Amino acid sequence: MQRTPLNDMACSIARTLDVAGEWWTPLILRDIYVGIRRFEQIRTDLGISRRILTARLETLVDAGVVEREPYQENPPRFDYVLTEKGRELVVAILALMAWGDKWAAPDGPPALIHHRSCGHIARPEVVCSYCAQPLDAEDLQIREGPGARRGPGTRHIARALQ
Amino acid sequence: MQRTPLNDMACSIARTLDVAGEWWTPLILRDIYVGIRRFEQIRTDLGISRRILTARLETLVDAGVVEREPYQENPPRFDYVLTEKGRELVVAILALMAWGDKWAAPDGPPALIHHRSCGHIARPEVVCSYCAQPLDAEDLQIREGPGARRGPGTRHIARALQ
Repeated sequence: MQRTPLNDMACSIARTLDVAGEWWTPLILRDIYVGIRRFEQIRTDLGISRRILTARLETLVDAGVVEREPYQENPPRFDYVLTEKGRELVVAILALMAWGDKWAAPDGPPALIHHRSCGHIARPEVVCSYCAQPLDAEDLQIREGPGARRGPGTRHIARALQ
Repeated sequence: MQRTPLNDMACSIARTLDVAGEWWTPLILRDIYVGIRRFEQIRTDLGISRRILTARLETLVDAGVVEREPYQENPPRFDYVLTEKGRELVVAILALMAWGDKWAAPDGPPALIHHRSCGHIARPEVVCSYCAQPLDAEDLQIREGPGARRGPGTRHIARALQ
């Protein structure tokens, strides 16, 4: 897949995709998160090429989302582990998973999330940090923020936001 | 970008990406959501080709995430609008935006979310549907669900979940 400089856009969706939006990347993060941490395990779990997996992991390490933890010195071998930045990204990806569980899981959810501290199966819900109510797209108005800028990928959007 | 049949995987992240994970698609949904609804407007906002935008919109319409609303008959012209399924996908994408606002917005958030019903600026937070606490990746255990299946993209993951 061709990389487009989403990073240049004044848009936090685009900048997130710049790190996490490459084809396979969310599934690589999924695997690392559930404990599939070694290059060959991830590669065979997903059935992808060494070249693609190497490139994707490089993006993630460069972005500080994943780090390498040596488990063998000679030859050097690593576990890939999530950083705090990566763990928070996984939580956002769980919101995408919840959407798939609702809209694209005819046989029921392939995975369940056990919330240790509350003891229940959690459905990730996206809520307002202020009032804690689930966000409804029709009840929101998107406004320009301090980091807004007109440019590639945001040519008309500033006008749309007002 | 080459399409991989993520749809075949028993994974709700993969199935979500099958609809929303194509390069540009989350930004197309962003544009439609904020009111940039016409083909040429979306195309020039993002600076992408007609061919790519046509293909992406087709995926979204086929998946029932977006629908065409005619605003002119001759020649036929459409607004693209989100369905309920699409509006819920946008909310999940807002969780990705919140991650970008925190980790990749050096000049501050490019966009703010005004929550009409509560009157405040909302930061989208991913919480547990049961106890309403923000989800912390380290406090979760992912288990096999009823729709789990070993196969492409999930070759080792069932074992990892247990």
